[in-house]
Amino acid sequence: MSDLMDTIRTIAKKTDSKILMVVLDGVGGLPLTVNGDTELATAQTPNLDALALESQLGQVELVGAGITPGSGPGHLSLFGYDPLRYVVGRGALSAVGIGVHLKAGDVAVRGNFASLGVGRVIADRRAGRPSDEKNAEIVARLRAAIPEIDGTPVEIYTESEHRFVVVFRSQGVDEAGQGLGANLSDVDPQVTGVPPQTAVGGDPASERTAFLVNEFVARAEAVLADEPQVNGVLFRGYSDVPHFPSFADTYGLRAACIASYPMYKGLASLVGMDVLEVEGEEDALDGKVAALAAHWTDYDFFYFHIKKTDSTGEDGDFHAKVKKVELFDALLSRLRELQPDVLCIVGDHSTPSKLASHSWHPVPLLINSRYGRKDMAARYTEEEAGKGSLGLRRGTDVMPLLMANALKLQKYGA
Amino acid sequence: MSDLMDTIRTIAKKTDSKILMVVLDGVGGLPLTVNGDTELATAQTPNLDALALESQLGQVELVGAGITPGSGPGHLSLFGYDPLRYVVGRGALSAVGIGVHLKAGDVAVRGNFASLGVGRVIADRRAGRPSDEKNAEIVARLRAAIPEIDGTPVEIYTESEHRFVVVFRSQGVDEAGQGLGANLSDVDPQVTGVPPQTAVGGDPASERTAFLVNEFVARAEAVLADEPQVNGVLFRGYSDVPHFPSFADTYGLRAACIASYPMYKGLASLVGMDVLEVEGEEDALDGKVAALAAHWTDYDFFYFHIKKTDSTGEDGDFHAKVKKVELFDALLSRLRELQPDVLCIVGDHSTPSKLASHSWHPVPLLINSRYGRKDMAARYTEEEAGKGSLGLRRGTDVMPLLMANALKLQKYGA
Repeated sequence: MSDLMDTIRTIAKKTDSKILMVVLDGVGGLPLTVNGDTELATAQTPNLDALALESQLGQVELVGAGITPGSGPGHLSLFGYDPLRYVVGRGALSAVGIGVHLKAGDVAVRGNFASLGVGRVIADRRAGRPSDEKNAEIVARLRAAIPEIDGTPVEIYTESEHRFVVVFRSQGVDEAGQGLGANLSDVDPQVTGVPPQTAVGGDPASERTAFLVNEFVARAEAVLADEPQVNGVLFRGYSDVPHFPSFADTYGLRAACIASYPMYKGLASLVGMDVLEVEGEEDALDGKVAALAAHWTDYDFFYFHIKKTDSTGEDGDFHAKVKKVELFDALLSRLRELQPDVLCIVGDHSTPSKLASHSWHPVPLLINSRYGRKDMAARYTEEEAGKGSLGLRRGTDVMPLLMANALKLQKYGA
Repeated sequence: MSDLMDTIRTIAKKTDSKILMVVLDGVGGLPLTVNGDTELATAQTPNLDALALESQLGQVELVGAGITPGSGPGHLSLFGYDPLRYVVGRGALSAVGIGVHLKAGDVAVRGNFASLGVGRVIADRRAGRPSDEKNAEIVARLRAAIPEIDGTPVEIYTESEHRFVVVFRSQGVDEAGQGLGANLSDVDPQVTGVPPQTAVGGDPASERTAFLVNEFVARAEAVLADEPQVNGVLFRGYSDVPHFPSFADTYGLRAACIASYPMYKGLASLVGMDVLEVEGEEDALDGKVAALAAHWTDYDFFYFHIKKTDSTGEDGDFHAKVKKVELFDALLSRLRELQPDVLCIVGDHSTPSKLASHSWHPVPLLINSRYGRKDMAARYTEEEAGKGSLGLRRGTDVMPLLMANALKLQKYGA
């Protein structure tokens, strides 16, 4: 949490008001030509336009000036966690990204397949970038051969090309609060021409993990000895479960996540939101609205995630991104029918189709509540958001503003 | 102080220029209907309008996004003290609020009158909420009976209903810099059905305070034994004098407070301003202008407080708040006649009459000096302030901006 959030925890109060935070993934864009219109400005959005006229707007930087947020830091910031302070380890983020639920004491590790030569010397740290199919085939062989090590269950997951994830499942947290530790040295030397390194633990719980890791490396090499190229494994980036303060406890909210992609459900779960079932494929817009309506009375806070505004930007497809914005616009009236006390529309980062990647540009923020002031912003676009009365802010300001507009914060000091 | 203020201290310089900071208490408001006008925008303010045209405007959040400031944190922020770092304890704030001046080594304690049954068991932690008159009568009995304990002077002050304040006056700070300590446990168990707790000190200076507190409790019960309902006392919230850096030292200013309510005079006194005498009742507008004019040559900085913009907002009286703004507007020319080098108009928090309470909304900031730039803000209103060139800022930015505009800050670094 930011310093501000330590304060929020002390002044949060429970009320019946409801907050709906819509995250349009990667929503901010760029014009294709100087002084042209962005994707948002190009889209026909009568419902968003009407909402903007009776809302307050502003701009949000999720991590900091010039910083392009990954999805993890972008969302953590929106949830009020300072993304420079609260870091989800690479192993845990990979596990979360493929939908694996980590428990206290477990350790997740990112692995690379590698090519080893004579004397175990690393010839290629990425094993010639195997196909995803080859990766899956190798993972299947390892799964069959290494279901556990010395009584510790081992789970192996495919990612893509040379990347995979291993989760060592702790058999419980001991009396000292210790399961497996994540404080150990890398197997990956990050250079070729030398053998993989032996992992060394920095404390007793991590020595146990180091034993498992070194044993895994040896067994995997034995299993893959007949492979011409994918015949070794390297590990780097060990993570235990991030010890984040609970979102629900901090804000005193019953909080639910409505998303359809594993990464976002995983992040919401990590901070302690309930993850609701959503029916349907891909962005599953109808399924999301149905889930929201079905659980409307059960929660005070809903994180409602729309993915395709990002995917189309990542594809560099300006027109497709415009269409995804218009699809959301068509959905908006069904969200407003539920009459949230506070409705927020924001993004976790910009993804301009011009860049075909995440970017550092601020995202437009819209807050609708009955306690707003008139402002000059007339549409939910980057340009109009710059005229809004909420100003240019950090992402960690969003939750306090939503809590305040929902009248869920007591006065600070007398 | 904020981190910035640690730097300000090193570059502040003394000059003859004069800064007038007008705090319109609770000045920010809300429209009664979506896109309607706020109290400020509704008011007829020809003088403020003229000033705004030749000033720079912006918006200020006193504590942080979404945080509703109490008067203490709001003012501390305006004076440059980070209100998340500099906290005035409840006992000290109560003492300050009723006009009691605390010295180093003194301890102020908040007390509640309680009803005790057989075996000193607490039956009602608020003694049936006695009238203010009954409270004053009980306080008078205690004052007469307990003027001192073991050589330590004891002062007892009425607040309202079941609330009172006790100040234990240290007989001086000892060679270790110690007077009485404020690190002791509560007498108030915060539940009924059990007796009051015995206070325990956490260090030698606080053990002394604990002795005084426990002795006070015993003597008060003896004095009040014949009272049917108000026959016990509970203590919670001990405060020594806040150890804040001096405002005058930090900024190199001869600083004066012109206010008529005890809380604001007390806060100014806590940070080391001189508190000037003001003739008249309530907001005493004429008396304040007279005090300002009379002392104009004696000080470099004036904190000039107007209370009624807040009181009317707290009453939920939109029209009355509009009138109080107009009253201040009529006064403005008399302030400008004194030709301050820097004139600032700001609030310590918003108090929208729509909410009838303090709120989190930013307050409009106006800075007039001969070193301002042209900006788009045409009136001192929330909406126009959003167009101002000073942007959206923290309250702790205000003092550095005033110091700079008064040419009282040297260059930072070579």
